Amino acid sequence: MSMRVVIVGGVAAGPKAACRIKRLMPEAKVTMVDRDSLISYGGCGIPYYVGGDVADLEGLLSTSFHMVRDANFFTKVKGLEVLTRTEVTRVDPQAKEVWACNLDTGEEMSLPYDKLVLATGSIPFIPPVPGKDLNNVVPVANLHHAKTIKEMVSQGQVGTAVIVGAGATGLEMAEAMADLWGIEVHIVEAAPQFLPGLADPQMARMLEIRMAEQEDIHLHLGASLEEVLDDGQGNACGVIAGGEKIESDVVIMGCGVRPNTSLAAEASLDLNQRGAILVDDHMCTSDPDIYAGGDCVSIKSMITGEGIFMPAGSLANREGRVIGTNIAGGDARFPGASGSFCIKLFGLSLARTGLNELQAKEAGFAARAVIVAQADRAHFHPDQKMMFLKLVVNETDRRILGLTAVGENGDAVVGRVNAVAGLLAAKATLEDLSNLELAYSPPLGAAVDVLNSAANAAENLLEGRLEPLAPEEFIKRLRDPQGSNTVFIDTRAFANAEPFLEAFGDDWVNIPQETLRERWQEVPKDKNVVLVCNSGVRSYESQLILKAKGYTNTVNLGGGMATMNRWAGSVLPSGDKE
Amino acid sequence: MSMRVVIVGGVAAGPKAACRIKRLMPEAKVTMVDRDSLISYGGCGIPYYVGGDVADLEGLLSTSFHMVRDANFFTKVKGLEVLTRTEVTRVDPQAKEVWACNLDTGEEMSLPYDKLVLATGSIPFIPPVPGKDLNNVVPVANLHHAKTIKEMVSQGQVGTAVIVGAGATGLEMAEAMADLWGIEVHIVEAAPQFLPGLADPQMARMLEIRMAEQEDIHLHLGASLEEVLDDGQGNACGVIAGGEKIESDVVIMGCGVRPNTSLAAEASLDLNQRGAILVDDHMCTSDPDIYAGGDCVSIKSMITGEGIFMPAGSLANREGRVIGTNIAGGDARFPGASGSFCIKLFGLSLARTGLNELQAKEAGFAARAVIVAQADRAHFHPDQKMMFLKLVVNETDRRILGLTAVGENGDAVVGRVNAVAGLLAAKATLEDLSNLELAYSPPLGAAVDVLNSAANAAENLLEGRLEPLAPEEFIKRLRDPQGSNTVFIDTRAFANAEPFLEAFGDDWVNIPQETLRERWQEVPKDKNVVLVCNSGVRSYESQLILKAKGYTNTVNLGGGMATMNRWAGSVLPSGDKE
Repeated sequence: MSMRVVIVGGVAAGPKAACRIKRLMPEAKVTMVDRDSLISYGGCGIPYYVGGDVADLEGLLSTSFHMVRDANFFTKVKGLEVLTRTEVTRVDPQAKEVWACNLDTGEEMSLPYDKLVLATGSIPFIPPVPGKDLNNVVPVANLHHAKTIKEMVSQGQVGTAVIVGAGATGLEMAEAMADLWGIEVHIVEAAPQFLPGLADPQMARMLEIRMAEQEDIHLHLGASLEEVLDDGQGNACGVIAGGEKIESDVVIMGCGVRPNTSLAAEASLDLNQRGAILVDDHMCTSDPDIYAGGDCVSIKSMITGEGIFMPAGSLANREGRVIGTNIAGGDARFPGASGSFCIKLFGLSLARTGLNELQAKEAGFAARAVIVAQADRAHFHPDQKMMFLKLVVNETDRRILGLTAVGENGDAVVGRVNAVAGLLAAKATLEDLSNLELAYSPPLGAAVDVLNSAANAAENLLEGRLEPLAPEEFIKRLRDPQGSNTVFIDTRAFANAEPFLEAFGDDWVNIPQETLRERWQEVPKDKNVVLVCNSGVRSYESQLILKAKGYTNTVNLGGGMATMNRWAGSVLPSGDKE
Repeated sequence: MSMRVVIVGGVAAGPKAACRIKRLMPEAKVTMVDRDSLISYGGCGIPYYVGGDVADLEGLLSTSFHMVRDANFFTKVKGLEVLTRTEVTRVDPQAKEVWACNLDTGEEMSLPYDKLVLATGSIPFIPPVPGKDLNNVVPVANLHHAKTIKEMVSQGQVGTAVIVGAGATGLEMAEAMADLWGIEVHIVEAAPQFLPGLADPQMARMLEIRMAEQEDIHLHLGASLEEVLDDGQGNACGVIAGGEKIESDVVIMGCGVRPNTSLAAEASLDLNQRGAILVDDHMCTSDPDIYAGGDCVSIKSMITGEGIFMPAGSLANREGRVIGTNIAGGDARFPGASGSFCIKLFGLSLARTGLNELQAKEAGFAARAVIVAQADRAHFHPDQKMMFLKLVVNETDRRILGLTAVGENGDAVVGRVNAVAGLLAAKATLEDLSNLELAYSPPLGAAVDVLNSAANAAENLLEGRLEPLAPEEFIKRLRDPQGSNTVFIDTRAFANAEPFLEAFGDDWVNIPQETLRERWQEVPKDKNVVLVCNSGVRSYESQLILKAKGYTNTVNLGGGMATMNRWAGSVLPSGDKE
């Protein structure tokens, strides 16, 4: 008899595993079950559907050749049996069968299996506050929610929206609603930063600045949701967050997700403390005949070796393929995740992989970090834009631990992070990154790429040559030069320094780098000296010149004023931009 | 006494080594010598200066903060001694000194050294044909040539240009001259392809098609330059190439470069057979006090371990840094090159790293290759463009040997190649690439990235599941279906297949994939069956369905019709595009 495989879940890992099994083992009987009517959709595309980049819902449900991936598609094209609107109610590992119920007819059925795949995904987390169940409180978890939201905005029912959560979905929804629909959007986030737990706070701040510059967007960071307000008719009419009342026509919940593992728990599969299913590197659960993948499992961090929860369609697909191969008799391993992530908001992209500085320190690494600013291709090419990198390395063994990149050319930003993702998996060192051979042509790259520069800067940091100052500390000192006994030496040309000389008086001194070898004695030895230039290169070189003259009291602004301007919006008290 | 370092050559590796030495060892006396008046320029930017992207020559000579990198800059800012217009005439390794001559005054001088760096670069190769020394025969090797060419074109002296050589410089110059200046450009290349020895011929063909579509550009591939024609007054007025006479106002020589190593040869340093300086992984020559880097050296291929000649400003910079570190007492190694390269022509970018299929076979690998076509981000996102990848792997150990990528989003193309460059250095396998964790968000990537797909396709190839047909063979069979006993089964929708059904009659059969599980018996067993779809995915799945039914006579068109249309311009006899 041919193998019977039951797949619970039809969005990403499930269909991937199912189709892979049928390709490798055409004789297998593969049954895919999902409680929803809509399956195999690109959930990450919901904000682009709401924002109009994707014209209709079918776009998120279709293949690249415009076939809708419905039950009929998977049956005809892929050879699966598909049961939609069918909820699996129980897994019986002893009897090797699952029980399911047709949600329309109420019919109950038993599905025996030789191998079972749990791809039950995640459920949106809704903060347990008063009013959370009111009408017009909508999560962004599936296409039905997407449709609801788009109908509301396109029918002009939404003038003001509150988005709870500054995770990826919340932020993308904010852009979609403000940019296309001109809705006044309030982003409410309990953490003091965008993308908490995911993005480095220094780098996330560049996105915060960009968002705050948008007329229709209002940020409420560090503001916990306390209550959803009732208009008296059961509809949400606003929230109270961080003690502040914000009126709105809709409240969108983008507070992240939790693994959906009640079936697994009832079947006594091993879960971690947060309820995610534990799997080995074959994506097999504690029951050798049950595999699991996608948002419902805990996977291994390739950096720390510890289990992490990382819901992402891209990982779900890779895991599904591994499951498919193994069920079909192969020997595929999922090596874990390095934590690659990217987001594009109002033309500014942030991408990251590995650990950020804080995560690395928490994991026990001797983490050191540099911020580097450089053009993303030949600086003389008209398409060039500044790219900002923060590279985290381990001081003891010089291993690369993580990278965050920010810039306007999204593909270029993501390209740098993807290059490092492969290096992380190979446990590469700083020297590997310094010599990484990025392709070069003036419209597409730089002779010394910003990635190579970041590695070189990190090397200089570890050797004690580069002593950078973090943006927060720079601002603190600039706000109180006397108290911090600081003088700022601006090594740029006079024209760049001029507004700062006017704004900060004697605390800001202009010594262009090309004059420093003659004028070094003007630099005081009895103050804390902060060396400043545009990107951090000239100030680093100035630091070396001064060190050779016996100065031990200098730091240089890492990433330079280019980074500061992105980080603070403006450094000048007037708020003027350079 | 502080260390005396002499650097011969002031373009890329030379200044990089010199500045690095001064940063690490401020007390060193570093003298940089160059025969030219212009130093430290971005030679790769010349076509962008001619084409107007870079407004003036200073753009190629300046730092990102708009300081011209002349002798004064290197003295004031970097602390070097710089001798321009000074030619080194002899190296005396025994006496540890070099002899040089000021080209303006004729003054001769001796420069004693503790460590010497040869960064003498390359010299353009000029084919030894009659007329090669005529006026208006210009190589593209330095900024003086750039200025000459730009003056000619901007003064309207050039209606027609012949460019000899379809290497990167020749092709970029062709675009610059045709695109900005409307010049009729003829590209003459002895090899039958663009970028010979560098780009995979199947992938380079996509650039050839793109260039051939330009009104002002005429390709003469497989045409050797035989003679440059004299107008009777010492000026070039055209060429004879491949037996054909082509009139022109200027002849631009873009025939590649040779290492400039006469000084090294006279100093009895070890050279390879092609005259490049041999260095160890510290970039040290056969003389322990002489280092060399840049276009004048042979470096190690990270794939084969053999020596290769790879003139590139990006490598020169990395090598210069390694030299600087080592001379300053450090221990830096240059690991070799994987051969990363990229070019953008009329909006289409090609990037590559590692070995192409032919190179890999010549190097003795059991090389297998797949061509994959897929959207470069979520297929439902409006910014998506098709990307075409050719991935080369070693069958015996599944190691990745090389990748070529082509597409319209240049940064996305280069990003994929850069991700693989790091994997090559780590000797990664197919499985590593299949699991490479590229960051995903719909505007910036795909849940299953085209790179992952290429690895998956290669795995299916090695397992014998995927049996692709190369584009050349597809065209051959399509031109003679009877002779090759071939039937084409088009698994796309009827609308896609219709023009082909009309053009090819009974030789082209439409069985949409979703009907194949019912209609498989219509597929003949006594003919060679070529399965066709748009990107190669449906045809692969169809191949598996037919194999499961006992068919052993199928191949599928790798990369699908999307690839064929790029490769052949049009597949239809009418020349119509889909």
